[in-house]
Amino acid sequence: MSSPERYRERQRRLCEYLADGGLEAAVLVDLEGRRDSSMRYLSGHPQDALLFVFVSGETLLLPWDVPLAEAHAVVGRVKAFEEYGRSEELAIRSVLEEAHVKSAELPGTLSYPLVKALKRSLSDTSLSCRSDGLARRLQEWRALKDEGELVALRRACEITNELLQEIEALVAAGEGIGLRLDGRPAARSDLRSPGSGIREVELALHLEFSARERGAEGMGFDTLAAGPERSFAIHCFPSVSSGSFAGPGLSILDFGVVVDGYTSDVTLTVAHGPLSSRQQAMLEAVQGAYELAVSLCAPGVDPFEVAVAVEQYLKQRGFRMPHSLGHGIGLEAHEGPVFRTRKTAGGNAPPLAPGMVFTLEPGLYAPGEGGVRLENDFLCTPVGVEVLTRSRLIRI
Amino acid sequence: MSSPERYRERQRRLCEYLADGGLEAAVLVDLEGRRDSSMRYLSGHPQDALLFVFVSGETLLLPWDVPLAEAHAVVGRVKAFEEYGRSEELAIRSVLEEAHVKSAELPGTLSYPLVKALKRSLSDTSLSCRSDGLARRLQEWRALKDEGELVALRRACEITNELLQEIEALVAAGEGIGLRLDGRPAARSDLRSPGSGIREVELALHLEFSARERGAEGMGFDTLAAGPERSFAIHCFPSVSSGSFAGPGLSILDFGVVVDGYTSDVTLTVAHGPLSSRQQAMLEAVQGAYELAVSLCAPGVDPFEVAVAVEQYLKQRGFRMPHSLGHGIGLEAHEGPVFRTRKTAGGNAPPLAPGMVFTLEPGLYAPGEGGVRLENDFLCTPVGVEVLTRSRLIRI
Repeated sequence: MSSPERYRERQRRLCEYLADGGLEAAVLVDLEGRRDSSMRYLSGHPQDALLFVFVSGETLLLPWDVPLAEAHAVVGRVKAFEEYGRSEELAIRSVLEEAHVKSAELPGTLSYPLVKALKRSLSDTSLSCRSDGLARRLQEWRALKDEGELVALRRACEITNELLQEIEALVAAGEGIGLRLDGRPAARSDLRSPGSGIREVELALHLEFSARERGAEGMGFDTLAAGPERSFAIHCFPSVSSGSFAGPGLSILDFGVVVDGYTSDVTLTVAHGPLSSRQQAMLEAVQGAYELAVSLCAPGVDPFEVAVAVEQYLKQRGFRMPHSLGHGIGLEAHEGPVFRTRKTAGGNAPPLAPGMVFTLEPGLYAPGEGGVRLENDFLCTPVGVEVLTRSRLIRI
Repeated sequence: MSSPERYRERQRRLCEYLADGGLEAAVLVDLEGRRDSSMRYLSGHPQDALLFVFVSGETLLLPWDVPLAEAHAVVGRVKAFEEYGRSEELAIRSVLEEAHVKSAELPGTLSYPLVKALKRSLSDTSLSCRSDGLARRLQEWRALKDEGELVALRRACEITNELLQEIEALVAAGEGIGLRLDGRPAARSDLRSPGSGIREVELALHLEFSARERGAEGMGFDTLAAGPERSFAIHCFPSVSSGSFAGPGLSILDFGVVVDGYTSDVTLTVAHGPLSSRQQAMLEAVQGAYELAVSLCAPGVDPFEVAVAVEQYLKQRGFRMPHSLGHGIGLEAHEGPVFRTRKTAGGNAPPLAPGMVFTLEPGLYAPGEGGVRLENDFLCTPVGVEVLTRSRLIRI
């Protein structure tokens, strides 16, 4: 399936959704402060636009940047958002009025004041705005990757694995990365204790450079590199510091590589001994929880059940995990399916199915001890799960 | 004013707002997909939390990551968001119910379905959710920087200026940056034509590394480095590629440096001749528009009037700018004041006032020709404006 055809196919599917629901149009919005990667999923246009899909099959994009849309968007018509004074309210009202739309679905993420204003001004149009509407349907569609998406994700995971190998070698060698600029000699650390010479900032920038050198579009999110002083936080802040990574204690590295919009997401932990008995226990519990989670995943399995089993496993060992067990990956670092110990409001999430790509990432954190997290990416196949990345708990 | 006192002062101000409006509580939300840096402004807590401020002066933070909050937040009480199943709806409903709050203001950015659900479940509580409520007030407060904020912004601009100098030297030398890793010899470009040896990705990572080396927290947004092939877009996509920067034609570099949460925001253009007459005209028009804008800014001036004057200036020369003339900077790369050629819905924006820090960034773009943008940061003083950064149009 050619790339433009991929977008048209998705738009046709959305039209069927509209027809089934008796709706004449759907509106999607991706703007600063309210990102929606379904914009890119449906139209190929990367960001900053409103998209109107009509049940007739017509599509209209209102981009902030028209030349960018002309280079990327697979849509029927393009009109500058500027023509509506870059006002969401004016644009939605005008387009729906001009097309004499009698019923439309708005994104469930639109703000209360905006939807109220639209309902007032478009009093003859039935406007639906629900959290379990099109957004949830898109989430379900997007959770099942097609061939083109799998090509991108597999490539992102390949690059990720090459980077993981590099990191392991660097950590084992115990030398500074020697990231340097401007032709000055590389400043090597005098330390030769494993890991000690690497700084968080060097590691993060090294990863980005290496990923881009291999053709990646960028990183899927701010790389989190937390040395022993900072790994107690689930997501360290700031994401990287000039402090040392992989010195004695527990260090966490969490990153993702983007290829054609699709991101991987992995986390490794470096455990640099000597460790406390509590740190040892955390490492063992995370490893065990990870193996349990992997063993339970298969097509037809409810992610909720996997998350509950892991929670119980950790509880028996005196631990509690303060975040979800895993999540889908794709155009966003966090999408469906979700591995949570509570049911989603408004019904069960669908079970695992072939084509889903997701992470499993058990983690434990304790101020004073640091954190341990192990995260890899998996593809659900017709017969089980395929592990796409090779992150691990590294002991040095 | 010590740092914790700064946050308490802001919370007191918010309490006064509540008292004036007859409200008992305000809710702030900063979560994935709906970021609100007023969370950090009011509490010091960087991200991923709900904040409740009561008219009594009490404050309650529900962070995703409790250890992170204990390290950063200046609040009365901290309780894990996890205790409410990480559900916004459950958390807001429970906290307001437990505190017997009769009237509260919700963020104007909350989604329509969420606010509707809250209004249903909290039927005894008067819930206000407006686009011109607390969010606008916070925007106004945040537009006027206090001393501590100016220290951070000045430092961010100093680092920015050091980076600008480096870039000018690199572009003039016409050599590859020679960014390299792992101790391998720097791969220098054989080209010696000015600018030709620099790749977008090297430039962006060089900037980030240099900024962090100087103590920056990171970059304020994805650095945009667009060589001649890509500078036609207002914001190139992807933000950097492996293509050449500063080869013949027009190249744009747009970046910001963060110090203690506060970001600078500058753009330079490299014009590498020979240029077309259209490119020459674009450069001259942007330079003229920039000088006009700077000359018009002073305390008491309406940013709208400045934007209109620049629009007319460009129109007389046959050009149209497809974006705003400028914007405030601070905890976000885009905040108040805004320099737009249309009035904000719901009343005029306040005039320029001492303590406001903002950018002016005229830009012109043409497919086939590329783009030109010049952006610097300014502080409004009691007597005029002080230029904080030294970006310029560079001709090589």
